[in-house]
Amino acid sequence: MTQSLAITIIGAAGRMGRMLIHAVEAAEGCHLKGAIAREGSEALGQDAGLLAGLKANGVYVTEDAAVAIAKSDAVIDFTTPETTVDIARLCAQAGASHIVGTTGLDATHLAALEKAARHVPVVHAPNMSVGVNLLLGLTRKVAATLGPDYDIEIVEMHHRHKVDAPSGTALGLGRAAAAGRGIDHDEAAILSREGHTGAREEGAIGYATLRGGEVVGEHTVIFAGPGERIELTHKASDRGIFATGAVRAALWARGKAAAVYSMADVLDLTD
Amino acid sequence: MTQSLAITIIGAAGRMGRMLIHAVEAAEGCHLKGAIAREGSEALGQDAGLLAGLKANGVYVTEDAAVAIAKSDAVIDFTTPETTVDIARLCAQAGASHIVGTTGLDATHLAALEKAARHVPVVHAPNMSVGVNLLLGLTRKVAATLGPDYDIEIVEMHHRHKVDAPSGTALGLGRAAAAGRGIDHDEAAILSREGHTGAREEGAIGYATLRGGEVVGEHTVIFAGPGERIELTHKASDRGIFATGAVRAALWARGKAAAVYSMADVLDLTD
Amino acid sequence: MTQSLAITIIGAAGRMGRMLIHAVEAAEGCHLKGAIAREGSEALGQDAGLLAGLKANGVYVTEDAAVAIAKSDAVIDFTTPETTVDIARLCAQAGASHIVGTTGLDATHLAALEKAARHVPVVHAPNMSVGVNLLLGLTRKVAATLGPDYDIEIVEMHHRHKVDAPSGTALGLGRAAAAGRGIDHDEAAILSREGHTGAREEGAIGYATLRGGEVVGEHTVIFAGPGERIELTHKASDRGIFATGAVRAALWARGKAAAVYSMADVLDLTD
Amino acid sequence: MTQSLAITIIGAAGRMGRMLIHAVEAAEGCHLKGAIAREGSEALGQDAGLLAGLKANGVYVTEDAAVAIAKSDAVIDFTTPETTVDIARLCAQAGASHIVGTTGLDATHLAALEKAARHVPVVHAPNMSVGVNLLLGLTRKVAATLGPDYDIEIVEMHHRHKVDAPSGTALGLGRAAAAGRGIDHDEAAILSREGHTGAREEGAIGYATLRGGEVVGEHTVIFAGPGERIELTHKASDRGIFATGAVRAALWARGKAAAVYSMADVLDLTD
Repeated sequence: MTQSLAITIIGAAGRMGRMLIHAVEAAEGCHLKGAIAREGSEALGQDAGLLAGLKANGVYVTEDAAVAIAKSDAVIDFTTPETTVDIARLCAQAGASHIVGTTGLDATHLAALEKAARHVPVVHAPNMSVGVNLLLGLTRKVAATLGPDYDIEIVEMHHRHKVDAPSGTALGLGRAAAAGRGIDHDEAAILSREGHTGAREEGAIGYATLRGGEVVGEHTVIFAGPGERIELTHKASDRGIFATGAVRAALWARGKAAAVYSMADVLDLTD
Repeated sequence: MTQSLAITIIGAAGRMGRMLIHAVEAAEGCHLKGAIAREGSEALGQDAGLLAGLKANGVYVTEDAAVAIAKSDAVIDFTTPETTVDIARLCAQAGASHIVGTTGLDATHLAALEKAARHVPVVHAPNMSVGVNLLLGLTRKVAATLGPDYDIEIVEMHHRHKVDAPSGTALGLGRAAAAGRGIDHDEAAILSREGHTGAREEGAIGYATLRGGEVVGEHTVIFAGPGERIELTHKASDRGIFATGAVRAALWARGKAAAVYSMADVLDLTD
Repeated sequence: MTQSLAITIIGAAGRMGRMLIHAVEAAEGCHLKGAIAREGSEALGQDAGLLAGLKANGVYVTEDAAVAIAKSDAVIDFTTPETTVDIARLCAQAGASHIVGTTGLDATHLAALEKAARHVPVVHAPNMSVGVNLLLGLTRKVAATLGPDYDIEIVEMHHRHKVDAPSGTALGLGRAAAAGRGIDHDEAAILSREGHTGAREEGAIGYATLRGGEVVGEHTVIFAGPGERIELTHKASDRGIFATGAVRAALWARGKAAAVYSMADVLDLTD
Repeated sequence: MTQSLAITIIGAAGRMGRMLIHAVEAAEGCHLKGAIAREGSEALGQDAGLLAGLKANGVYVTEDAAVAIAKSDAVIDFTTPETTVDIARLCAQAGASHIVGTTGLDATHLAALEKAARHVPVVHAPNMSVGVNLLLGLTRKVAATLGPDYDIEIVEMHHRHKVDAPSGTALGLGRAAAAGRGIDHDEAAILSREGHTGAREEGAIGYATLRGGEVVGEHTVIFAGPGERIELTHKASDRGIFATGAVRAALWARGKAAAVYSMADVLDLTD
């Protein structure tokens, strides 16, 4: 019989962290081993179960990531790029899988993940929901099937607190479209439009960003061709889908070879 | 060098017929050989090119389908089930491919197509657009990937003149979903809802029908799961996409073995 | 200074009841006086605050509505038609305002509300959100402005547990459209479509119903005319909007004349 | 009996010009008097009816606007800001109403219209469809009713040939929202978003622009609040709605006092 997977959550005191505590407690085959918060957090010393609105589970929030990771099989991390780089090093040292939902990683941060992935499985996805990852595959497929007379546009809406545009998920969809079409994303991407833009450039991948209210996250990829449009949409209504996906990734990574994986690997969506 | 494909259009005097005349004249590698209208039609005797708002092309509308089909390589037919059965027999006798866009065919009508398909290629699709046929494939794929906690619903809107509900295309999408999920469509299908329906049955495939204005045709397949939705949409804005697809099917069918084919075969979307 | 309004909640143990407890506790100028559950409910005897995931508030759930209503200024009731009829009588006797969010009321039930409204203010709305009530007004206005060449269709989606179709809110939107256009709703309404329906009847108001997942409630009114469409949409993402609206209605009703009121009255949307 | 209104169309050789010829020929109570094209246009000397795909009407396309306007009761002008300034002067001299659908007018151009409006009725609207002008009124109303916790966002999509962003119609909707809310549009407007934008500013009116395919024009105004969203959408599927609206404006302007009017005046949507 497989032993229960010991999981540490980084950023446990935030909204996403508390959802991750819920998801770990709700899943079969794993348990919460550590809950890490920042120096100075009010959550330090609290019971992680109570913090998440559940029953007490005897895991107390600490700021010492190294100690908790050393006792864990997997680490789930939806934090900031800088923190994620530090955690990657600790995971590599401790032999723990690193499940990374952090957004905004640049080439330097990604290099740190690659380095850790020489030693342990790293699952990295800007969006861990089943639906979004399915949409990534569909987008690539449709872009590969339809010719250049179908213009590709991506529109997304998120709540008023989001600070970057377009979302990491929107950019991921654009990259999937570019890959399907066999073109360079960064050359094709028009991240926003304002003023006298001139006519749409052939082959462009356009983005449009909406912000408002409490919208959890909505993304639509539009293929606008002669006489018809195809639109592929994902609507998230509960952030829990990201936490559920992260725990699924942690369970999947057990025993996998050291490498960087995507959610497409976890969900077996590669073809 | 390949000889130009001779095409006869059945129902040439109607709106779809005139679009087919346009599409045949616009395509490379084919020409209009015959244009058939019903007994009593005002279009009888007119030049088919002029009828379609083009230059005269010297093909005069007649009611004698047998004569025209005998001289043709392919026949395009968006008419009624009864007419289509007659035309299938004539195509089989004459050795002409039969491209069928007629909707509302029941088992008897389909049996007539099967019979003709012993002698000639028959391409049959309730909707001949590239986009809709791509959507059929995506729907099957998503239904196969997502488990039963994602409810499948299909909503469509067409213009005020449409007489049946749900549309043939909507039913085709539902069948694709059922096939992907490995269930029996006709048992799962809820074609409409009204009154005290009770809670949604697990595994159902639900339909909703909208009619109004001049809407050419819009279909959305919704997968509604825990915390997220995936929606796949096709919007037709120009009936020309069906005519273009039909001519593409006629060109594709040349030299193919006698059999019933779908647009997925024509567009190489089967996998 | 105005005294805090004493509110009793009927059906306090259900999902909506607990949201109402939240909304009463969150609002200024009112407090929870009574919390009523059905005979046999497991919630009987529990503290209503704890039941709703809040701090204990010293109000214990009971099954004796008459006693609680006698001590209250207002009663909020999202239950069943039969229960609502009983509660209306108790409110009239006790002099308490009756805020009714119950759906599925027929003419008999409405007559009972009218009777109670001879003695106390009754606010009755199948949907108490600000947004939906605003949409009702817009629908009436647009229907009044656009002529009969704009076809009116209403599509709604709710979660898989909903048992009736179309929703009470959808029917309310249809009635608003009929009123704006000056026609009889029940003659114009096509509640569902299936099979050979024939072409759309001129002046019809069509409905389409979707069910699936956890969708809280989405309604769209479509005006489909020559060359253009206008669509008015409401999307609820949190049932709390109905509870918030109900508490707003209770506060508004204080001191009003005995009569049946709508949310348009409460929100001052009549013009 | 009223005499038929004599109309001259400026820019008659373009796509919009030909639609205007159609609309004038189709409407009751008016006839085409002049059809003006640019110096060097291939359309010069052609019959305007034939140019528009209709029967010959004996009106030949010329480049001499002054002569045609002198004989006309109304002039319809969907051209460029520079041309519109010239035409305004000619209309004022000739006593002809000036119906202006030209977009991209700045303060200088508008001043020229104001000057002409001392002498003749000028109807100016960036979008002449009934639906869009209705949407402007609804947007103002909803913005006035909902408080600042409802974030306002506007998203629009047009075909790949459009050269400016956001569309004039989108900006008009934003101005209507700002007027309803009683704020300054230009201070509130966020015309696009890209990169690290920070959280959404309170009270902002955000825009997002999509371009692709053959989309005639779609606009949605979103009000995203706590727990709910209201969305108001207009979808144009046929440019003919703008031409029809312009002819309606020309007929309406007959006998009106010299002034600048909007389509809200023409359609009696002011309240």
